[in-house]
Amino acid sequence: MAETLVQIEKDFLKYVEKIVAYNEAIAVMAWDLRTGAPKKGVEQRSKVIGLLSAEVFKLSTSSEMKYFLDALLSEEGRKELSEITIKTAEDCKKNFDRMNKIPAEEYEEFVILQSKSESVWEDAKKKAEFSIFQPYLEKLVEKTNRFIKYWDWEGNPYNALLDLYEPGMTVEVLNPVFNEVRKGIIPLLEKIERHGKKVDTSFLFHPFPKEAQRELCIEILNQMGYDFEAGRLDETVHPFETALNPGDVRVTTNYNINDFRVALFGTIHEGGHALYEQNISTDLVGTTLAGGASMGIHESQSLFNENMIGRSRAFWKRNYSLLKQYSSGQFEHVDLEDFYRAINEVKPSLIRIEADELTYPLHIIVRYELEKGIFNEEIAVKDLPAIWNEKYKEYLGITPDHDGVGVLQDIHWAGGSFGYFPSYALGIIYAAQMRNALLKEMPNFDELIEKGELNKIRQWFTEKVHRFGKLKKPLEILHDATGEGLNPKYLLTYLEEKYTEIYQL
Amino acid sequence: MAETLVQIEKDFLKYVEKIVAYNEAIAVMAWDLRTGAPKKGVEQRSKVIGLLSAEVFKLSTSSEMKYFLDALLSEEGRKELSEITIKTAEDCKKNFDRMNKIPAEEYEEFVILQSKSESVWEDAKKKAEFSIFQPYLEKLVEKTNRFIKYWDWEGNPYNALLDLYEPGMTVEVLNPVFNEVRKGIIPLLEKIERHGKKVDTSFLFHPFPKEAQRELCIEILNQMGYDFEAGRLDETVHPFETALNPGDVRVTTNYNINDFRVALFGTIHEGGHALYEQNISTDLVGTTLAGGASMGIHESQSLFNENMIGRSRAFWKRNYSLLKQYSSGQFEHVDLEDFYRAINEVKPSLIRIEADELTYPLHIIVRYELEKGIFNEEIAVKDLPAIWNEKYKEYLGITPDHDGVGVLQDIHWAGGSFGYFPSYALGIIYAAQMRNALLKEMPNFDELIEKGELNKIRQWFTEKVHRFGKLKKPLEILHDATGEGLNPKYLLTYLEEKYTEIYQL
Repeated sequence: MAETLVQIEKDFLKYVEKIVAYNEAIAVMAWDLRTGAPKKGVEQRSKVIGLLSAEVFKLSTSSEMKYFLDALLSEEGRKELSEITIKTAEDCKKNFDRMNKIPAEEYEEFVILQSKSESVWEDAKKKAEFSIFQPYLEKLVEKTNRFIKYWDWEGNPYNALLDLYEPGMTVEVLNPVFNEVRKGIIPLLEKIERHGKKVDTSFLFHPFPKEAQRELCIEILNQMGYDFEAGRLDETVHPFETALNPGDVRVTTNYNINDFRVALFGTIHEGGHALYEQNISTDLVGTTLAGGASMGIHESQSLFNENMIGRSRAFWKRNYSLLKQYSSGQFEHVDLEDFYRAINEVKPSLIRIEADELTYPLHIIVRYELEKGIFNEEIAVKDLPAIWNEKYKEYLGITPDHDGVGVLQDIHWAGGSFGYFPSYALGIIYAAQMRNALLKEMPNFDELIEKGELNKIRQWFTEKVHRFGKLKKPLEILHDATGEGLNPKYLLTYLEEKYTEIYQL
Repeated sequence: MAETLVQIEKDFLKYVEKIVAYNEAIAVMAWDLRTGAPKKGVEQRSKVIGLLSAEVFKLSTSSEMKYFLDALLSEEGRKELSEITIKTAEDCKKNFDRMNKIPAEEYEEFVILQSKSESVWEDAKKKAEFSIFQPYLEKLVEKTNRFIKYWDWEGNPYNALLDLYEPGMTVEVLNPVFNEVRKGIIPLLEKIERHGKKVDTSFLFHPFPKEAQRELCIEILNQMGYDFEAGRLDETVHPFETALNPGDVRVTTNYNINDFRVALFGTIHEGGHALYEQNISTDLVGTTLAGGASMGIHESQSLFNENMIGRSRAFWKRNYSLLKQYSSGQFEHVDLEDFYRAINEVKPSLIRIEADELTYPLHIIVRYELEKGIFNEEIAVKDLPAIWNEKYKEYLGITPDHDGVGVLQDIHWAGGSFGYFPSYALGIIYAAQMRNALLKEMPNFDELIEKGELNKIRQWFTEKVHRFGKLKKPLEILHDATGEGLNPKYLLTYLEEKYTEIYQL
């Protein structure tokens, strides 16, 4: 290998290390802002974060970066250099191309519009008036459409947005998959509503002291294999997971005294994200590849843990007595089967983040269809509320009383995050497909859960998913782990089996 | 004013804002490391901090910085520009000159030596063997001597080191002052030991639950005027205060279940530092001037609050019932006077950080005399343990059993921080001198404390000290606040009065 190429590789990796370091600093400050930073320091802190983010932007789009990428991704580079270097360069190049194609002033306008829109959206949601938000959403869509024109993509223009969150994902792949999911879930839901045995959930809503909830959450995180020497659990209004580096992956949760499920399932969910980040190969530390492959793959890890482990019968066979121990007597006279049914109650609801496992994908599919319509100029922003309500009626059988619990419920669009929603449904489809592959290799899956040997399951995911970080694309990970492409039938079979039994259909 | 000068000023302030932003990011990460960051992330985090620190170093010593400083500190600049700009430029220039005069590779060697020496020192202290640490300390002294040769200074070479922590302070000023303090304290101490009424402290050491200690500390911080909307209180092994920005000034404390004094007086001490930083003028935010004027002035604020308020009779007239309320009955049968005497017990001890108010300056004077001796080549490193022990015998009347509780007790020298110790004694001298000035303006000082109106006292300090940040030099602040130069007689009078009464001499 040419002397210069060796040197360029070395310089490039050092340069990337700096970007990664700045991003860690930003992430620590962002975590701090959400876990109790004093409010009078927020303004200055936001400036500091803005300044460092601008620095990251500069480093990522500089002529120095271009020089590195041209040299490393040359024919010689691709032949001679390590996989990690090449994939890191490709990851940087994707980002470079995307950012560099947007004129700087347009990007700046977009960033300002985003933050304005978020506060307008907040107000509109509170007042349940879409018309307040509409002009901002129109501008966000208009600007996003301009960006799409600057970028390279194939097929449907919405593919350019999908690719931001789920590299390689397309409308062509998603359309048939989401249709099949929708057509599978709706009849099952109708059957449950018409013929299902009613579920009693009243015993869930008793006071459960916060400190006891916290201890329970810690015990469950330990059982999952979450490493507290490489993480910590804090309290925030909105739970999240943040990976500062693979040795420092934090989760937060929110405690509702009268509904322990919020903290417990929230913690298991964020814990699932955290297991991913804690188990990325240490070879990738210091590169941009030390992170999840995509939003969807990330969500597969959280949803697998939350629903396929945390809401399984086997898990509660193991942990029901533990729950009883920490709670203040509310489950004393509730038997395990009734408890299991209660935490798996199916009930179409208006709010996505409160949805159950069965109806959740329908919430996502509504949003997918709307976004796709917008960016194909088939749906106008002004018509969104009406179409939203129609689709909720059609898919979930319910209609929002007002836009505050309808089209205005999510912050995503206000932040200009179009193309993000599908990841949530992809997550559960990936999860079910991986669960199927896992069951083939570990037919004693339920037994492991019942014994509390979740770490063995975690190891399977580390082997197949976690360790690769961003070395592989989402569909590559899925294929290598399951032997096939995206296939929604595993999700439908899983749901059918689980809910047929729970509702005694 | 010339167009270009206006532009240069603008660019310079933006440039400085970036340095300040990086320093805030570093400070947040350092705070985080000390308040529960998971240990497996520490290595990567340290790299991130190192990388950002290197960036700050680069920015502070760049040719761009030189260009700014030359233009702004020109005759025209000094005539035309605002005080804040000029003082910021002077502050940057001081730093620039100091760093730029050291060859880069020598500085790097020093940084590596520092961190090595700290771990060697830790080992040496544990084993109580000075010989393990000696070669490292010799190297640190040797390198520091080289730095002194690179720098500009007048009079005694040790002045170059004093100036690092106490701008403008010199051996010529300190010698007579420290001599007077020493000659004042030693006879008072001997008198107490020979004729003083014995003090009972046994009731201090009862179990006092941590949560109750924490609540008490919060109440006292509120009383002091510490703004919890611009700060927070956390737990760490070693208490500290850190100012991320003037709207985010955090304190930490350490709880000893069997000695509530550790947390309470520690919190008041750090709270005093925090009052300083919270009340710096907002005009200085974003410049390098938004910080304490010096280590000594900073220490004057913490020691004033800890000793002259927190250990005063008036304070406990106000707060003794509060203390009783939070504690678990240990003070039920102890009257206020006995309590007041107990928390002001004088007892020569070997360990500086455990010393009482009266003997504390003697610990510092020992260190001052040794450092001055070393950098005047009158004392060799190898002779430090023997001279240390002699001085402890002479000044405090006690001799260490071994070097672990003698010359090896402090980390400062291992970190290459020579010239730092005098600030601690200066702090208490400044504090007493300011107290005297304050008493003239507020003869009802004790009454204010007794009424819990500490905020009025805090306002006086904000007016005279806090708001200026680094706009003024330490002795300038002292002079403007008290009408005279450094004068130790106020400390001696204060100590004499207080302890004559307590010990009924």
